[in-house]
Amino acid sequence: MSYYKKIIQDYISNNKESAIDLLKQLVMENSVSGNESRAQALVLEKLRELDMDLDVWEPDIEELQDNPYFISTRENFKGSPNIVATLKGTSGGKSMILNGHIDVVPEGNIQQWTYPPYSATVKDNKLYGRGATDMKGGNVSLILAMEAIKNSGITLKGNVYFQSVIEEESGGAGTLATILRGYTADGVIIPEPTNMKFFIKQQGSMWFRLKVKGKVAHGGTRYEGVSAIEKSMLIIQQIQKLEQIRNERIEDPLYDGVPIPIPINLGTIHGGTWPSSVSDLVILEGRFGVAPSERLEDAKEEFENWIKEVKNLDNWFVDNPVEVEWFGARWVPGSVEADSELVQTLQRNYSQITNQNPVIEAAPWGTDGGLFSQVLEIPMIVFGPGETKVAHYPDEYIDLDQMFLAAEIIACTLIDWCGVQDQNVGEGAYENKEVL
Amino acid sequence: MSYYKKIIQDYISNNKESAIDLLKQLVMENSVSGNESRAQALVLEKLRELDMDLDVWEPDIEELQDNPYFISTRENFKGSPNIVATLKGTSGGKSMILNGHIDVVPEGNIQQWTYPPYSATVKDNKLYGRGATDMKGGNVSLILAMEAIKNSGITLKGNVYFQSVIEEESGGAGTLATILRGYTADGVIIPEPTNMKFFIKQQGSMWFRLKVKGKVAHGGTRYEGVSAIEKSMLIIQQIQKLEQIRNERIEDPLYDGVPIPIPINLGTIHGGTWPSSVSDLVILEGRFGVAPSERLEDAKEEFENWIKEVKNLDNWFVDNPVEVEWFGARWVPGSVEADSELVQTLQRNYSQITNQNPVIEAAPWGTDGGLFSQVLEIPMIVFGPGETKVAHYPDEYIDLDQMFLAAEIIACTLIDWCGVQDQNVGEGAYENKEVL
Repeated sequence: MSYYKKIIQDYISNNKESAIDLLKQLVMENSVSGNESRAQALVLEKLRELDMDLDVWEPDIEELQDNPYFISTRENFKGSPNIVATLKGTSGGKSMILNGHIDVVPEGNIQQWTYPPYSATVKDNKLYGRGATDMKGGNVSLILAMEAIKNSGITLKGNVYFQSVIEEESGGAGTLATILRGYTADGVIIPEPTNMKFFIKQQGSMWFRLKVKGKVAHGGTRYEGVSAIEKSMLIIQQIQKLEQIRNERIEDPLYDGVPIPIPINLGTIHGGTWPSSVSDLVILEGRFGVAPSERLEDAKEEFENWIKEVKNLDNWFVDNPVEVEWFGARWVPGSVEADSELVQTLQRNYSQITNQNPVIEAAPWGTDGGLFSQVLEIPMIVFGPGETKVAHYPDEYIDLDQMFLAAEIIACTLIDWCGVQDQNVGEGAYENKEVL
Repeated sequence: MSYYKKIIQDYISNNKESAIDLLKQLVMENSVSGNESRAQALVLEKLRELDMDLDVWEPDIEELQDNPYFISTRENFKGSPNIVATLKGTSGGKSMILNGHIDVVPEGNIQQWTYPPYSATVKDNKLYGRGATDMKGGNVSLILAMEAIKNSGITLKGNVYFQSVIEEESGGAGTLATILRGYTADGVIIPEPTNMKFFIKQQGSMWFRLKVKGKVAHGGTRYEGVSAIEKSMLIIQQIQKLEQIRNERIEDPLYDGVPIPIPINLGTIHGGTWPSSVSDLVILEGRFGVAPSERLEDAKEEFENWIKEVKNLDNWFVDNPVEVEWFGARWVPGSVEADSELVQTLQRNYSQITNQNPVIEAAPWGTDGGLFSQVLEIPMIVFGPGETKVAHYPDEYIDLDQMFLAAEIIACTLIDWCGVQDQNVGEGAYENKEVL
């Protein structure tokens, strides 16, 4: 282990409490979409302590909305600032973007939580709360990694851009805004909760809305109407079939352990206005998974054509076609080669620190990483602390040891990737400065 | 045809315009539950012209709520008056209640209406609008019947009670209030839209609510959750099976032409909170049809047990049973014997006036008539103008000629039933006073 990496390890080991405090404060601020400002204020306070160059702005929807990758359900981003903090390098090294989102999904049914979702309760070295794992824990890993470098007096050659962005849970408008503002780099790490696995491919997704029509009638003579609820059942079955067909096509061994690599999730259903009337409209909303290598447009077309086909199963749909609408959130799929320098560098540090090889998988969900892959076309990897399966669930938690481990691996990767200034020669030279 | 009946016929023939005007005004007042007062004011104005004894009151929910037949979603009936107008007989005749409800169901999707629902547009001798057939047209038939008797100088022996009640569409609290206030009679006619058929039996119904549980998860790993939407599909199929079983039991030949004598209508479905989360709750609401001879309690028990049985089809329901709740509206089933004096008297007048025998059927829906059948245990028949199938639909309309025909048949039935005062002997004697 290099001299610098030992310093990093020691720093993190000696500064766990303040990192836990930061995470607690972040989790206690419910930062659902539209409500991110107080959590961002906490992030800013921390970044100011690190003396980084700060760029704080509310993304301008007017500037974003003509971009084909822009999607949002919001009318503006007033009160929802993006932050990019730059740890400036001396020059000559590769640059890195460290990207994490500050927004969280709603807590859902509060009855299902053991501890209140914004209490940030710590128990058995786990911190519980909405956003703990998705992804305030990952954000703290990033901040702690930079803090360890900075406060240990290590000067990097390449720039590090820490991005605390809004709107990841609703389609990535925050990260897109950083790209349109001109931020780019030679690589990107996104510490979404992979449970320390390397997600080198990621599922994309789009939200859809289906309007299934019926014909109203009195419930007592319901045979004179056509129930949109009954017709919806056929549509749901069709969607289940399409999901099966699409997933049978996925042959990438990275998806071997994943029951449904690209799921179609029906998330909401709303129909009918009166218990004793036949419903004439049901609205279904869901999330359509897109394969890492699939074009969004192709995925849309397949879904739309499939839904049109129901007219061959039920004549009702000939004159009453189901309307398909794409709305709200959308995540661009993404991928990076396993033998790319970014993956190799992260992998080397992971193995040195943990004495194990990382598990490399394809992600069952999208992240803002797709935007870096497809808009900027720069290498991007998703790797972070926290269990994927607790994200968006009640009793979401993060294992604090994983958070510190991720911070160490990322800090050491930055040292390799960006290079350290006060060395005689180029990259890797400091590897000789072994610890006693 | 008797002298009096010819007078009635002539009166109605000469006073169609004012009756159409009254119906227009009534339809133009949207009188959904909670909004009945202006329509009732129009009724009152008309009844005052007829110099009837008026009883106008807002039912007191405190007095009603302990009655086992009471059901309502409202907290009080402020601003929603009931009206009972008495056409006092001289004595010695049988009395009759003429019952009609003033409340209407909401207009639904306004795009589906050819004419605006509260415009009361007349075209090809049909008047279009919400409530035209269900049942303001029937109410105008009743008022016109009484007006013809009164303004023709005919004095009845028995009392006629005209009831313009609230809340029929939500379970009958208005009619129950008339019963608890002491109103009763020897017979009841309710001119709901039967398209001039005699409905001597009627389906009862109750509203139910089902809570189907799931387990939340991120949509990208939806296989880690349990979709309440998918589980609801099984519940819907189960309900369809129960509907089939219950209807196979119905052997009454009166239901021969009815595809589903006692339907179970699933009217609303609401579930999920986020397109990319697995939904953990779906709420289904509907209307459970009850056979004319069935006890409400037995019907409830069968449904609840059937829903419990789903645990044998899917283990999920063992630990996550579907909750069943009975709420909102409920209509008591009812029936009257075909050879009862009420049915026979109405039938004789129907045949004399139309030169045809009436079609006698069982109603596919409930009315306030069940309360007269089961609470007061007095003979009650549902017979009125307007097509059943347009009730609760867009483009609801009433055939104006049917409205006048119903008024004539009902007026003539009152003459027979209540008796006319200025005759030498008892009932039927005036039949000798033939028209020249």
